[in-house]
Parts: sequence; C-alpha cells; structure tokens
Amino acid sequence: MIPTKLTSYIHQHQAFLRHEDTPTAFLHRCLEVIDHREGHIHAFVALDREGAELAAVASSARWKSGSPLSPVDGMPVGIKDVIETATMPTGQGSAQFSGTRTGRDAAAVLALREAGAIILGKTVTTEFAATHPGETRNPCDLERTPGGSSSGSAAAVSAGMLPAALGTQVVGSIIRPASYCGVYGYKPSFGALNRGGSNDQLSQSCLGVLGASLDDICAVAAEIALRVGGDPGYPALHLTKEANVRPTTLAVLNFAAPTDVGHAERAAFAVLCKRLQDCGLRVIDRDSDPDLERLEQALLNVFTETRRIVTWESVWPLREYAGSPNPRLSADTLARVQGGLSMTPADYLAALTQRNSVRTLSNEVLGAYDAVISLAATCVAPIGITSTGNPRQNVAASYLSAPVVSLPVMHVDGLPLGLQVMACPGNDSALFNIAYYLESLLKT
Amino acid sequence: MIPTKLTSYIHQHQAFLRHEDTPTAFLHRCLEVIDHREGHIHAFVALDREGAELAAVASSARWKSGSPLSPVDGMPVGIKDVIETATMPTGQGSAQFSGTRTGRDAAAVLALREAGAIILGKTVTTEFAATHPGETRNPCDLERTPGGSSSGSAAAVSAGMLPAALGTQVVGSIIRPASYCGVYGYKPSFGALNRGGSNDQLSQSCLGVLGASLDDICAVAAEIALRVGGDPGYPALHLTKEANVRPTTLAVLNFAAPTDVGHAERAAFAVLCKRLQDCGLRVIDRDSDPDLERLEQALLNVFTETRRIVTWESVWPLREYAGSPNPRLSADTLARVQGGLSMTPADYLAALTQRNSVRTLSNEVLGAYDAVISLAATCVAPIGITSTGNPRQNVAASYLSAPVVSLPVMHVDGLPLGLQVMACPGNDSALFNIAYYLESLLKT
Repeated sequence: MIPTKLTSYIHQHQAFLRHEDTPTAFLHRCLEVIDHREGHIHAFVALDREGAELAAVASSARWKSGSPLSPVDGMPVGIKDVIETATMPTGQGSAQFSGTRTGRDAAAVLALREAGAIILGKTVTTEFAATHPGETRNPCDLERTPGGSSSGSAAAVSAGMLPAALGTQVVGSIIRPASYCGVYGYKPSFGALNRGGSNDQLSQSCLGVLGASLDDICAVAAEIALRVGGDPGYPALHLTKEANVRPTTLAVLNFAAPTDVGHAERAAFAVLCKRLQDCGLRVIDRDSDPDLERLEQALLNVFTETRRIVTWESVWPLREYAGSPNPRLSADTLARVQGGLSMTPADYLAALTQRNSVRTLSNEVLGAYDAVISLAATCVAPIGITSTGNPRQNVAASYLSAPVVSLPVMHVDGLPLGLQVMACPGNDSALFNIAYYLESLLKT
Repeated sequence: MIPTKLTSYIHQHQAFLRHEDTPTAFLHRCLEVIDHREGHIHAFVALDREGAELAAVASSARWKSGSPLSPVDGMPVGIKDVIETATMPTGQGSAQFSGTRTGRDAAAVLALREAGAIILGKTVTTEFAATHPGETRNPCDLERTPGGSSSGSAAAVSAGMLPAALGTQVVGSIIRPASYCGVYGYKPSFGALNRGGSNDQLSQSCLGVLGASLDDICAVAAEIALRVGGDPGYPALHLTKEANVRPTTLAVLNFAAPTDVGHAERAAFAVLCKRLQDCGLRVIDRDSDPDLERLEQALLNVFTETRRIVTWESVWPLREYAGSPNPRLSADTLARVQGGLSMTPADYLAALTQRNSVRTLSNEVLGAYDAVISLAATCVAPIGITSTGNPRQNVAASYLSAPVVSLPVMHVDGLPLGLQVMACPGNDSALFNIAYYLESLLKT
C-alpha cells in the first residue's frame, strides 16, 4: 500500500503571495511526482510539459506582482481525455480516435486557460467515458482499479501529480473513482457546468471536478461557471461560501442492494453516522422515515433505467462510429450499439417519463433534509483493472440530476472510502457549505 | 423573375412502384437542374455526385423489387453546411473552417442515410448559422436574398434541385428562407429532432427541414425521429397523420412592429384570413381577444432577449475560435464575441427566467386556439444579398420552443410569401395535420 498525499494548490496561495513558493516551483513538484510514479500508474495519455513550463513562468510573474488572474492562476490541471484540448489530442479512450486532434479547447478548458490555469495533461478515460477500461492503476494500491470512467483524473490527483482534474459522470464516473482513490469529487446539478466540447452530451451527463481539497474543487468549478457558464438553457453554478452553515438533519439512503455492499464498508459508514450524531446532527434512515423507504424503493431500478436511457442516447454517435470504414470499438461499445437497435423512441419516452416521476418524488421527500449521506462506493477499490467497479452507489444522483460531493473521510483496510453527500438539484452551493461543515467535523 | 417549380420525391412513389420512374432518373433530373442553375444560385458548397449515383442505383434496385428501406429511400437531400457529413467537408460557412472534414455523419444524416436517402450536397449557410451571409441567391429573383441562415437549403429546394434539405433555426433561419424562396419549412418543438453533430446547440436551436411539400418534410422528419430520436432528454417527434382534422379557431399574432411589415404583405395576409373565415374558420386577433393582445405585448422584446441568450450561449466556441492562432472570423462574429464578454452568468439567468415566464403565458393564452397564423416574413425577399433579411416574424416561435411550419401560399408582386402556422410546444403532429388542412383550403 502506498500512502497518498494530496497536493492542494489553493492552500499555497499565501505562500505565493509571501513569495515563499511560485507556480513554477509548484509545477516542478507535480512533474517530479509524475516522473516518479507515472510509469506505474498510467494516469495520462498526454502531457504538455513545454506549454506548462511557459504558462507557469507567466503565472509566477503575475503572482509575484500580486495580480493573479484568478484563484486557479498557475494551477496545473488534468483534463479527462473525452474533453477537447487545443494543445493535445483527444482520444476519448478509443482505439479509433487515439491521437485525434480537434484543434480547440472545450468550454471548460477555455475557461480554465483564461483563468490562468495550466493545462498540463490529458487523463485516461474508459472508452467514450463508458465501461471499457484503460490501463490506469490505483495509486493507493497498484493492483487495484482507480475506478472509472474518470480513471486518470482520480489517479493523478490521488498520487499528488495534480491538485485538480476535470471528469464527467453519467452513471458514477466521478464519485466512484474519487472514493476508490481517496480524493475529493464533485458532480454538479445537471447543466450547471458547460459541457461544450466534452463529448458527453447525454441527458444525465455532467462535467465535474476531482481535486485535492474542497477548496481546489470549488475554485476550478467557480472559474468555469463564471467564464463559460452552464449548458445552454441552464443556470450556471453559483457558489457562495457561508461561514456559519450548520445542517441539522441528514437523510441516509442505501442505493445498492445490501449484498452489493461490503461488510467492513457498511461498518465504517455506521461509525461515521454515529460520529455525526454525537456531534448533534440528526441522521435519519428508512427505519425512522417511511418516506425514505418509499424513495429507496423508487430508486431500486435506476441502474437499469439509466442503462436504457444511456443506450438510446448513445445511438448517435456510436452507431455512426460502428459503421465507419475502419471501426475499432470494444465489445462493450458494440454491445451498446446493438442495444440501441432494439429500442424505439417510445421505449425512450417511457424511460424519460419514469425518470421524471422519480425525480418529483425525490424532491418531495428530500425537501425535509439538509442533505443525503451514503457510501460513495459499494466497497473500497476492487483488485484488478479489467473492471472499473460497481457504480450502484452513484447512479441515483446522476439519475436525479442532483449535485453530489465525495469526501475522502473513511478507510477500510488502509484503503480510502468516500462519503457521498447529495443535495436536491440546484442546491450546489448549499451542498458545498454542508460538505465543508461535515468535513470539519469528521477530520478532527 | 424565374418561376420556381418544386420537386417532390414522395409524390413519385407511385411512379416508382409502377416502374414508370426510378430514383436514378429522379437524381438525374435534380442534377440537370443543378447543372443548369447552380452557377447563378450558389446553393451548394459541395456535391457528392459519385456517391449519389451509387446510392441511387442501390435505391432503384430496392424500389424495383418493391422493398424500399423507407419513404425517403432514394431521395436526394441537401445538408446545411453546419451539419456534419462523413462524405463531404463541414465548413460552417466560416473561412476558418472551410474544407474541414470531421469524418462522421451528424445524427440526422446517419438516420437519413440508413433510411436510404441520398446525401447529395452541402448547402450554403451563413457563418456559424448566424448573420454573416454566404453567396447564395434567391431562385425566384437572383437579385434577392434567399434568406438565412439556411440559405442554400431553401434555394436548392426552391430551384427544384432537391425535394428536401436540412436546416437549423435559433431565430428565424428555416421559416424566413422558406418564405422568401417559396418552399415549405418546418422547425420542430425544441428537442424533437436530434441535433447531434449539427454544430448548433443553443437553447432555442432546432434542426428542421425545408422541402417541396408537406409530405416531403414529414417523411424526412419522421425518419430522423424514428432512427435517432430527439435531443438527449427530449421526446422525439412523433407524427400521426389524421384524415379528418378540422381546426375551428385560429389566433392571429403580429410579431413584428407594424412599421416593419410591408403594406402589400399585410394586405395579402388579410385576404388569406378572409378566405379562411369564408371557409368557416374563426380567425381571432388582438382586437377580439385581450389575451392575445397581452401575449403580443409580452413578445415585443423577444428579438432583443433572444440576442442576449444567443450571445451568452455562443461564448463557447466562438471565443475559442477568436483566440485560435489564425482566426478568420467575420466582423459580425467578432462583435458577438465582444458582446459575450460584457455579459455575466447572472445576466443570462435573468434572460432564461424572463423566457420561462413568457413561455408560461404563451401556453396559457394559446391553449384556447388550434394554432397561430401569421406572415412567415415581414416582406417578400428583399433585394441584395448582403443581409439575409428581417427575422422578426420568426423569433417568437424559436423563443417559445414552439413548432412552426411555413406554407408557400401567398404571393406579392410575383414573389412568394409564406403563411407561418405555429402550435404550442409538443404539438408538432397536430400542427402538421392543421397545416395539411389549411393548405387544402388555400390551394384550391
């Protein structure tokens, strides 16, 4: 087991302003970790060292003169390789698209670059951000999966190579790898961060952030929202940090079947709930609130329902790629293409209608709670890298379009395990304030 | 003035089945018109003659054996050049992207190809489907604009070069050119036709169809919806032709300021309304229904509001393109980039909130009517090709996310003028049935 040491950028601000540290020195420390560990971890598909050095010099000058462009000025970030970058190829984890250059930055990358961030590398994704895995290994234990689909982003942050990286999630692709790798993860409310150029336009997909601290995640997300907004038609994320937020009532939801969840993980979560109760919080589960039981029942099929939705919505472009002159697609992707052929618009409409009704129920039930807490994964990172693990703890938040954060505040057998904190759609700012508060209770 | 002769494909079905005509012969007639007129009209940026010939031979064999893939099997179609095609470049009407090959078909193009349609050519669009015009001329009078942004699609159908072509509309980019060129146009309810790969992802944008008849438009739209559905998260268009639809009550809405509308055009519309009333329809305007007056008032600013929305939503990718190493953007586009820099997410949120409230009002008021009729343009096609004309009659339907059809049933000074028929969002099928009925009254 290799202990992880997360590398916050935001926490270096004071050192930059006091001229005790510089973005260039920070970058060099990141590159040192990369040089030392990347050969074993395989978090990246591309690195732009030269561009990063130049950007760091410019940023260092801005910090030196006391005029950084933003809190992320000089921050080295990783970009999940489904998201377009002007300076590096965008391979989408696909043999068919490996090395493809689109020549432009995605909306979020444009925003980060304008904010002064350093676009250091492209991080490994599963093929088309779906299930077929890449080669990335978990920095906490190289025999284990980092999770997916944002595999490289989670692993790079976990290994201390980067303070933050972009990911995307339609099922559990940010929160699960965050849990497996012991980093912070954030998937916003649907639409709150602009997905332009992210090659992940499904109706539950979000662009989100993995980072070394809540501060790093908030800083990255805020710059994206400020500069390029959310998806067309949706309000952009608007974060307001409030010092004295004190949630009183948390709901506990079990998303996965009891047999899917590890015993030790369940025990760790019970201990955590007890600690929160000891701090004066009300922690309510299905045994005390029949509405929560009703909601858990309504959420039982969300994995299957999500699969129907995603299968239909992937008809294009996957069927187009499958029919191209030289298709090089995994068996997983070909199976999804086949699945799409057996669906009709009416099947899809039924799935949307069902999703809407579950969303309505969820908003009704959860209105009584400050937030929902649960395990961020069914277990710690499983051994092996041929599967990216079980997303059943994560799919509900995606299905509900709800904002969710993973806090690396538990361990089982020396491996990290995340606490998943979820709020109702649109309540991203409140969620972060609650997450800060819970972390302050649990880190002491 | 050159009279236009629209070329329906669907109306040839019987001739195909009786072996009196073939898709190959049909294609050759289209190519003959193209050879004869394209040098003056400039409807196309690319033609795939070789691919079209091969596809026509295959289609002809299917029709001969009585087993066409779909009603559009063998139909030559044009694709607005913002929409991706595997077999031709996608230049987006932009000097910067001229000749760019993406190597894939957009969702709608994939669907049409799978349905057996012949992807014959890419049609001229204004730059990025916005305002900076191309070189296309109006087949009805070469001194006049065909309208835009779907300029080439409207012109090609108008000249009899094609039975149908794809367009997109965020303000008035399908319905206005349909009116100016004397063809049928259809913009669906928001989300009803899959925009994947159409490079037009704004929150009011739709992919739609221009065609030689309602039958041609319906056939094309139905195949897209059936095979690739709508946008992720939206129900796909579902058309059901009903023989005995008979609308009883139509609302008249004036979208443009009175001074913006030509006198002769207003008179032509008054004559048309009188004809409908003589056929027994109730045609109600603001003078008889104060709710319609209230709605017209609420719609007064939709052009300005739409411009705010579109400007913010265009921040990406336009700012990215403007910042690229060799930007080649029009002054119009650079002005839009500048406009985006002066907006904030809060400004955008205010615009969305305002739009939602107008949509709510509209749905309340229009629930009392079978459909809304109006002029499809403020006037016939204006002289000159440096502007694509005034979209004020069209922007409301885009802003309201409402389905709308243009019927070429009026003339002023020998030039075509469309009747715009609009329904409430989601009522596309009812709208088509009403449009068929109105056309049957007005064509006799």
